[in-house]
Amino acid sequence: MKSRTGKPANQSRGATRSPFEHAYAVIMAGGSGTRFWPLSRQKTPKQLLALFGKETLLEAAVARIQAVIPPERTYIFTNELLREKIVRLLPRIPRGQIVAEPAARNTAPTIGLAAHEILRRDPEGIMVVLPSDHVIEKPDVFLRDLGAACRWAEIEGRSVVLGIQPTRPDTGYGYVRFGRRAGLAEGGEIFQVEKFTEKPALPLARKFLASGRYRWNGGMFIWRASTLLGNLKKFQPQMARSLARIDRAGGARAREALAKIYPKLEKISIDFALMQRIPNVFGVSAEMGWSDVGSWAVAYDLQPKDAQGSVQPRTAIAVNSERNLIVSRSKQVVTVGVHDLVIVETEDALLVCARGDSQNVGKAVQELDRQGKRELL
Amino acid sequence: MKSRTGKPANQSRGATRSPFEHAYAVIMAGGSGTRFWPLSRQKTPKQLLALFGKETLLEAAVARIQAVIPPERTYIFTNELLREKIVRLLPRIPRGQIVAEPAARNTAPTIGLAAHEILRRDPEGIMVVLPSDHVIEKPDVFLRDLGAACRWAEIEGRSVVLGIQPTRPDTGYGYVRFGRRAGLAEGGEIFQVEKFTEKPALPLARKFLASGRYRWNGGMFIWRASTLLGNLKKFQPQMARSLARIDRAGGARAREALAKIYPKLEKISIDFALMQRIPNVFGVSAEMGWSDVGSWAVAYDLQPKDAQGSVQPRTAIAVNSERNLIVSRSKQVVTVGVHDLVIVETEDALLVCARGDSQNVGKAVQELDRQGKRELL
Repeated sequence: MKSRTGKPANQSRGATRSPFEHAYAVIMAGGSGTRFWPLSRQKTPKQLLALFGKETLLEAAVARIQAVIPPERTYIFTNELLREKIVRLLPRIPRGQIVAEPAARNTAPTIGLAAHEILRRDPEGIMVVLPSDHVIEKPDVFLRDLGAACRWAEIEGRSVVLGIQPTRPDTGYGYVRFGRRAGLAEGGEIFQVEKFTEKPALPLARKFLASGRYRWNGGMFIWRASTLLGNLKKFQPQMARSLARIDRAGGARAREALAKIYPKLEKISIDFALMQRIPNVFGVSAEMGWSDVGSWAVAYDLQPKDAQGSVQPRTAIAVNSERNLIVSRSKQVVTVGVHDLVIVETEDALLVCARGDSQNVGKAVQELDRQGKRELL
Repeated sequence: MKSRTGKPANQSRGATRSPFEHAYAVIMAGGSGTRFWPLSRQKTPKQLLALFGKETLLEAAVARIQAVIPPERTYIFTNELLREKIVRLLPRIPRGQIVAEPAARNTAPTIGLAAHEILRRDPEGIMVVLPSDHVIEKPDVFLRDLGAACRWAEIEGRSVVLGIQPTRPDTGYGYVRFGRRAGLAEGGEIFQVEKFTEKPALPLARKFLASGRYRWNGGMFIWRASTLLGNLKKFQPQMARSLARIDRAGGARAREALAKIYPKLEKISIDFALMQRIPNVFGVSAEMGWSDVGSWAVAYDLQPKDAQGSVQPRTAIAVNSERNLIVSRSKQVVTVGVHDLVIVETEDALLVCARGDSQNVGKAVQELDRQGKRELL
């Protein structure tokens, strides 16, 4: 591969070549969560919810990246429970590229699996790893920064992370320390990344925020498939060997090998497995209007409000009520004298939650789990 | 009639004779209201709700009086919409004594109609007029005081009202001023009633409460059917004539006469029609633990609470939540960080209301009415 020379691959084709020419989208859609219960369930996790209008977050993620990476170069990684639903939801993505992992092993094994898939198709393939359940309010900025990252990642050995400007000392995110400017690509600034820190305690998170040097890690990574596999081989040799065995099986035996080997892989995030260890990590500071929509409170914040500051069905009747988020499919909802509530009604469940307390919805779901109410999870 | 002599009827039978020997229960079950929306609807008003356990308020009212007045001497007055439901609910009451008024004309015409029915059966009949949608926490006290009232009412011309000790300056009730002690009956004290005042303004209600001389009028009246008709003839002669025409029709023509004449009667309460005008009104002060259950807040107050002060389905999960009243038939309800709410979920509607604001539920129902959503009323 030309890139081994240290120069951007295909540089000879000239400066107008798209930075996405060899880019492959790897959309992580296997997540399950409890924060949007009762709307989110194991069979319809957050990425499959239309929290904002008619489109699910996954559809929005795919539509967004489709502006620069076609369906033929888009992979969706999910689980058995969701695969068929996603196949129906995304008819333009080739079925074979909507992959159900036989077991949830966190992000490192998924990304390794994706890297093999892509490398088989394109030795120069660049992976664009993206979550499926986030909101990006400025897709143009996102795509521009992504272009910069792809261009920078053309050099073998470079890994790039999109860093999100933090707005609060959130203890639920990973943080990335940006160092000196490393260069320019596609008009965007590229920085050295000095350090990854997972979910810091509040005092540390406050320091990070105050320093101005930290960005949130939103799980968006860009690198050559070959770079990723090289790093895996070096820093996660056991996982790399197992993934190589799956890759070699190929053809009719591929599915069998996957089912046999994959569930035994270490359950580890790409952050722990690689990002905290590998050299040559770079960052692009992306002001894309990002949100991981981590709670009902955030879902409220992201939506247009009515005159009373509420987000609610058109038919709802509000007496002395303000700033509520109400989700109900068919019932006549009436509020009287209540404010700052989240009210979500589904076929089998009803949540009434103080908006400021919506990070605790998961506790109730844990209790349902403890009580063995599988059908409600 | 012996009672015309001024002496208690049948006094010769001796002191052990039951004061309820000629008593007829007249239970007023035609009311409709909006305060318990969305549980209460036009087809299932408050008296047909099982707000406290398995029994509707109407069933409880009938069961309570049945300790002293048998089903054969119990009449239920209601409307066409509710009659069949009530017939099914109260199989022991003779069907002919569950009467649907052809139109709602308030309480005076209903009571006049009942008086004719009873007088035809028993010239000495004493009417015990009772609401069907109130709670009485001390039925023994109630029945004892009712016995005193029935005994006192045996004398032709006497009317008796059960007066409830007020506990707050409520502006939604009628007030009765008690005067000097008139005598004793069945061990209970009987007082002269000096005045009826309908729904006073707050300053007046406060004075009433402070004076100690006033009682609430809970709509429980006791008098001979003949006394009532005598008073009607004198103070509401037109209504008395119309009711007499219905009474005279009898037999096969009774229903027709009722349908034709009744809807033309003046729509007026017994309080305005008679109580404020007639002489010889007496009162019994009944410490029966009475409540008219006038709002969801009161329904909450009247029920046993769990450790968090909530009244909710056993299956409900409460995280950081206290003092809520939750009604839901089949859904899994979860509350997070909310307190002092009323949450009521039915097949087609959902109410979330601050408990302290539950007197405003009616405003929302008015809005539904304004929007023409008949099916939700």
